[in-house]
Amino acid sequence: MASVSDVNIEVIKKLRAKTNAGILDCKNALIESDGDIDKAIHILRERGIAKASKKMGREAGEGVITAYIHPGDQLGALVELNCETDFVARTEEFKKLAKNIAMQVVAYDPIAVDRESVPKDIIEEELSIYEEQAKRMKKPEEIQKKIVESKFEKFYKDVVLLEQDYFREPTITIGDLIKEKISVIGENIVVKRFERFQVGE
Amino acid sequence: MASVSDVNIEVIKKLRAKTNAGILDCKNALIESDGDIDKAIHILRERGIAKASKKMGREAGEGVITAYIHPGDQLGALVELNCETDFVARTEEFKKLAKNIAMQVVAYDPIAVDRESVPKDIIEEELSIYEEQAKRMKKPEEIQKKIVESKFEKFYKDVVLLEQDYFREPTITIGDLIKEKISVIGENIVVKRFERFQVGE
Repeated sequence: MASVSDVNIEVIKKLRAKTNAGILDCKNALIESDGDIDKAIHILRERGIAKASKKMGREAGEGVITAYIHPGDQLGALVELNCETDFVARTEEFKKLAKNIAMQVVAYDPIAVDRESVPKDIIEEELSIYEEQAKRMKKPEEIQKKIVESKFEKFYKDVVLLEQDYFREPTITIGDLIKEKISVIGENIVVKRFERFQVGE
Repeated sequence: MASVSDVNIEVIKKLRAKTNAGILDCKNALIESDGDIDKAIHILRERGIAKASKKMGREAGEGVITAYIHPGDQLGALVELNCETDFVARTEEFKKLAKNIAMQVVAYDPIAVDRESVPKDIIEEELSIYEEQAKRMKKPEEIQKKIVESKFEKFYKDVVLLEQDYFREPTITIGDLIKEKISVIGENIVVKRFERFQVGE
């Protein structure tokens, strides 16, 4: 068990923000958990001091949530677009960007924001198909490798939001559009997440 | 390998609907895959006959996609509400129900549509906490069991959409509201899924 002086005041504050428990309760739970916040939450909940909260682990971040429903109500998207300040989040320009990204998601059906977020099982399935297709061409191994690589580039361009052509202006990508806005607005802008629903999908 | 006569015409139709490949290609792929549709899709894709499709495995279903964004753009929900016919899906009453459910999701932050859909790790975490809380009461084991059960009832009421009180009319649950609409509209109505975004969550 940690001693009182080992428990950092910052950690107590954090636990308090997450649980709404009193400072003393937070301190005691942290002493018992050796400073581990998740364990301390568990201890506070066991004692009925903290309530179950779906808000735990929430990070700070500015931005907007925007939806776009395609006419006919059969297709829709929800987008979280983040920026650095509340001031920018409230501008029309930022809200318009979020709306256009939601429309892009509805129109072009991406599966992930960036390459790193494409699920691994999808990558593996594509890889096995591209390798088989390349093998059938009976070209040297090096060329087969290149073929697989170029098929992946095409795949990412098709399914990764930031690499897709912007539906309003197909000469630029969504990534380009966001970079443009970053330089105009002067703040970093990040597509945090999106969800797309289609009836019967 | 299956023979031609083993391949059911219904399965060929299904494969064709999923891949847009020709009937003969579908039949051959199914013969090779011994009637396994997923394998047949894989075979068609390897040969470049079928394209990668995010639409595969799509089921039929009528309904609407509805969004609600809370004023301030910090919170939003996307909902799919299903019914049996396109006719009902286009009625104002059905659309209004979908909108009210989206508002419920924003206001009451459920984690699942029904009990069965609550993630197992959450159930286990709750169980361990309720058991510990019950133990601390030093009551007979049977009573401890009852305490855990009643805590779970409260938990479900709090986090399961269909069991939550309807925000516009707290004397009924969302499940009651939907049952009411089913009897008025005369068609089955199902909340298929929802998603809720909050900035910085």
